[in-house]
Amino acid sequence: MSNADQRPIILTGDRPTGQLHLGHFVGSLRSRVGLQDSHHQHLLLADAQALTDNADNPDKVRNNILQVALDYLAVGIDPTKTTICVQSCLPALNELTMLYLNFVTVARLERNPTIKSEIQMRGFERDIPAGFLCYPVAQAADITAFKATVVPVGEDQIPMIEQTNEIVRRVNRQIGHDLLPECKALLSNMGRLPGFDGKAKMSKSLGNTIVLNASDKDIKKAVNAMYTDPNHLRIEDPGQVEGNIVFTYLDAFDPNKEEVEELKAHYRRGGLGDGTVKKRLEGILKELITPIRERRAELEKDPDYIMDILKHGTDKCRDITQQTLDEVKSGLGLFKF
Amino acid sequence: MSNADQRPIILTGDRPTGQLHLGHFVGSLRSRVGLQDSHHQHLLLADAQALTDNADNPDKVRNNILQVALDYLAVGIDPTKTTICVQSCLPALNELTMLYLNFVTVARLERNPTIKSEIQMRGFERDIPAGFLCYPVAQAADITAFKATVVPVGEDQIPMIEQTNEIVRRVNRQIGHDLLPECKALLSNMGRLPGFDGKAKMSKSLGNTIVLNASDKDIKKAVNAMYTDPNHLRIEDPGQVEGNIVFTYLDAFDPNKEEVEELKAHYRRGGLGDGTVKKRLEGILKELITPIRERRAELEKDPDYIMDILKHGTDKCRDITQQTLDEVKSGLGLFKF
Repeated sequence: MSNADQRPIILTGDRPTGQLHLGHFVGSLRSRVGLQDSHHQHLLLADAQALTDNADNPDKVRNNILQVALDYLAVGIDPTKTTICVQSCLPALNELTMLYLNFVTVARLERNPTIKSEIQMRGFERDIPAGFLCYPVAQAADITAFKATVVPVGEDQIPMIEQTNEIVRRVNRQIGHDLLPECKALLSNMGRLPGFDGKAKMSKSLGNTIVLNASDKDIKKAVNAMYTDPNHLRIEDPGQVEGNIVFTYLDAFDPNKEEVEELKAHYRRGGLGDGTVKKRLEGILKELITPIRERRAELEKDPDYIMDILKHGTDKCRDITQQTLDEVKSGLGLFKF
Repeated sequence: MSNADQRPIILTGDRPTGQLHLGHFVGSLRSRVGLQDSHHQHLLLADAQALTDNADNPDKVRNNILQVALDYLAVGIDPTKTTICVQSCLPALNELTMLYLNFVTVARLERNPTIKSEIQMRGFERDIPAGFLCYPVAQAADITAFKATVVPVGEDQIPMIEQTNEIVRRVNRQIGHDLLPECKALLSNMGRLPGFDGKAKMSKSLGNTIVLNASDKDIKKAVNAMYTDPNHLRIEDPGQVEGNIVFTYLDAFDPNKEEVEELKAHYRRGGLGDGTVKKRLEGILKELITPIRERRAELEKDPDYIMDILKHGTDKCRDITQQTLDEVKSGLGLFKF
């Protein structure tokens, strides 16, 4: 695929295992809306990857493809600027993965810190599905199939980028020239948004997320339940801003940074009640979410339109990834009719 | 793919890493020529599998595809009865492998006795390529993609069949009905043919094989160098038949079993020289190999014809395997446009 205008190629995406929420908005969606103007952006609905730890629930994965696509479009991903595609409908990715698996040792995969901690998190122990162990290789296939040079990731995903570049170097060495580009991590400047209950991990199952089409009532409820400073009992007392989720969310969403700093100072010296700060946050979240929710509801009425977008994007990405596969196979000197 | 005439489906094949030799003839080729009448037989030129331990030498693998195809046709594989196909040109196999990897644990793969011993044989230790660890899963994909129910294997490959059937049961359970058939091992009634030097392992690198287009001179040389009974120094002495490779080969190739038994008795009681027995074997091998060599030489003149056969077979197998993949994806309820 020619990339005549020299805009860097970005590959990113999500496992479609549930609706997206404010954590995704802060961590990735918001910046993607900006990146689609300066970059060739491909968004991968990573259903095949989601199956590596959801093999017993393919329905969940399938049903969430449309949900996540709706979220993308509702927040302002523009399908004329960003290609949105479904991973399991790009067969070249599987062929590249299988080829790359020959260039990585099992020991190397087992040392991958991201995999190590995710194995622990999921409680797999020795019963890791082989697909899960191999998914950094599948991810390298995704990234290189698009010849992406920029991959937005969290700090914890940096080992995945390193693994990808290791594979790139090995494959290029075998081919004899730099067919595949190395990629760089684009680190989010926002840390991970905590759940509204103050827990570091935000997840649907913990019930501490605010989804992107939350109703006004949901927003109010979530903000009211939000973790603040448990020692800030009387309005006139000094309060703590650090670890106070209302302020964490204001930092993440309030466009007026100056006023947020003033509020923090006021809260610290005392005289500012949780209710007032929460009221402000509630307003800001409503302002953010209302248009997203409305656009999403509108889009939801026409699932055929969404499917058309996915189909168009996937067709385009099928060509791109197949082209790379052909180049790799031919570079390695594999059999060809 | 309908299988209207109810003949059982066989999948078998070879890693194209070198020309085939008499060991292959005894172990598999000879029976395949018979099986193609009673079975739907598919022969897989397993170049993708060969790459799992030859990633640094894809040229060798590519070049041997034509060589092995020539061997097939030369021994009497009939492309109107048997489909011959190139593994790396069947993308559905990769997709099935990637799906099946989610149904197998890493611990299970590491326990596979065949893999364990092959890892040792190849000296991989901890540096096992991930593709090599995963190849039993790729093999399950091969077998099930063709819905093969009969898989000719050596004794040492039985764990591979068990692994395949485990995957079949897990995938069927997830799908909710028996979409994929379990398969049975078809054990060769011949043991493994030893190298002519008496070593159990016959391999090109050990220089103890007789290839299927060996010249009369090569055959003579090999038979003369053949390991017999080192204690049988004088013709009149009793000789030992067990471990005497000349007799092992006569058992494998001499059509007159009765005369072979008489020769063995004579050799055991003394009075039969190695030279006489070797002469007989040389004649038998020449009779076997000469027509194969001549057919092979004839076929070799028209590589386009061989390529046409491979292309035709691969096209047919692409449809069969894609059909199975579609059924599995749809059975699991994966996304589909």
